[in-house]
Amino acid sequence: MVEASLDELLPGDDEYPRSIHRAVRYSLFAGGKRLRPVLALAGCEAVGGRAEEALSTACAFECVHTYSLIHDDLPAIDDDELRRGKATCHKVFGEATAVLAGDALLTAAFGLISRTPEVEPERLLRVTKELSEAAGTLGMIGGQVVDIESEGREVTFPVLDYIHIHKTGKLILSAIRCGAIIGGADEDELAALTKFGEAAGLAFQIADDILDVEGSSEEIGKTPVADEKRGKATYPALVGLKESKIRADELVEMAVASIEGLSPSADPLREIARYVASRSN
Amino acid sequence: MVEASLDELLPGDDEYPRSIHRAVRYSLFAGGKRLRPVLALAGCEAVGGRAEEALSTACAFECVHTYSLIHDDLPAIDDDELRRGKATCHKVFGEATAVLAGDALLTAAFGLISRTPEVEPERLLRVTKELSEAAGTLGMIGGQVVDIESEGREVTFPVLDYIHIHKTGKLILSAIRCGAIIGGADEDELAALTKFGEAAGLAFQIADDILDVEGSSEEIGKTPVADEKRGKATYPALVGLKESKIRADELVEMAVASIEGLSPSADPLREIARYVASRSN
Repeated sequence: MVEASLDELLPGDDEYPRSIHRAVRYSLFAGGKRLRPVLALAGCEAVGGRAEEALSTACAFECVHTYSLIHDDLPAIDDDELRRGKATCHKVFGEATAVLAGDALLTAAFGLISRTPEVEPERLLRVTKELSEAAGTLGMIGGQVVDIESEGREVTFPVLDYIHIHKTGKLILSAIRCGAIIGGADEDELAALTKFGEAAGLAFQIADDILDVEGSSEEIGKTPVADEKRGKATYPALVGLKESKIRADELVEMAVASIEGLSPSADPLREIARYVASRSN
Repeated sequence: MVEASLDELLPGDDEYPRSIHRAVRYSLFAGGKRLRPVLALAGCEAVGGRAEEALSTACAFECVHTYSLIHDDLPAIDDDELRRGKATCHKVFGEATAVLAGDALLTAAFGLISRTPEVEPERLLRVTKELSEAAGTLGMIGGQVVDIESEGREVTFPVLDYIHIHKTGKLILSAIRCGAIIGGADEDELAALTKFGEAAGLAFQIADDILDVEGSSEEIGKTPVADEKRGKATYPALVGLKESKIRADELVEMAVASIEGLSPSADPLREIARYVASRSN
């Protein structure tokens, strides 16, 4: 559903100016796991909503995630040449186009949310506000800033938690919450899903850190131990590999426990949380 | 009104992480003319709306404009060191922070629109959709892409028009339209304001080109003939200075004529159009 919608909702390769649309599509269809959109759909279903209604919002989260990867990979930031097993956007299309492709995806994300006529405008506006906060300087961008400023420095546990919670966690949490808002969640359901999303988001980031240490380049699609080489703050670097795995498993248990009260329609969410943990084992 | 709102609505210099908020505020309060927000307020008043209701939307347009300047100035794109008479964002805060400061302003823009509880959600959603389109790859970003790809090449008149209409015109037009949408414009009023905005937006860009040729560094706050040096497409380069001035004046007349039918509440809009032309004379 997400693949088909992204393809349908974004301008085609042949639309003028072609270079920017090719760059956007190159990064958007580079084999991402679609974790955030799937979480948005699962969040909508978990509270009894129809997944179809959350589809453009789900796609918006993937656009924001992809934009953040394109900009993170830029020479001025992480200077990465490989992403999801393919050359990064700026390596293929040049730095100027990569900056603009990221901008384009971020801009398109908010447009996608606004074009969902079947959903109440109040809900869509709340989603717009949530996404803006989750992706902004008090969310994802804030995490990225602190991550950059911590490179090559001794990082304390609170700072590492800040980076993980903001750089990755906020958008993951927001995807679940926004799906649920579209699905008509009440405040109790939103509170439970927020606890779920906070724990699952952090577990996902720790699993990612572990993969970065353990995985081969082929498996993870980027240069392994790249983070360590740059002196980036990671869980395994701070508390060791074994302790990191224990913490990831605990967080998944916490996530699943926090939505005990939701009906079987929340089962997909539960399965996603377990999948997240299994990635690191 | 716009200055006070921008100051109030954006995170303070002392909010964590400080570097990104300082960079955002450095560029946002670098002495911009606030043309786009003023047009949004004037567009709202022109159809009988209360300017206060369009204030966060007006600020959103300034955020989008400022983000586009920060990213345009990056070494990978225009590589400019001076903007509005001050060192550009990346010269002061570094390239990584400048990329993220632009991202932050774009993200904040959509958040601002969503936080206007006194305006009907339907209108705010329509504004969200309009801004996303005006700023996206079929609008401002598209113009920027074609501008970059045209550097150092022979540029035809249709291509130069495409660049001006998209890179600058779409956002100016959209600011007026979005102000009017919040003010409760009917379709006839919107159609008249669209004609006004298209003509005034193009006049503004031509005036800007003329200033770039004629102005001193002190007057225009950036390196003069910078565009020409880079082989950028401009009106004076293509049709000469005299013809450019005639065309700018004609466009302002067209703009004013197209809103003849609107009441005296549209007078501020008329004055802005004349100010635009006077900048180049």
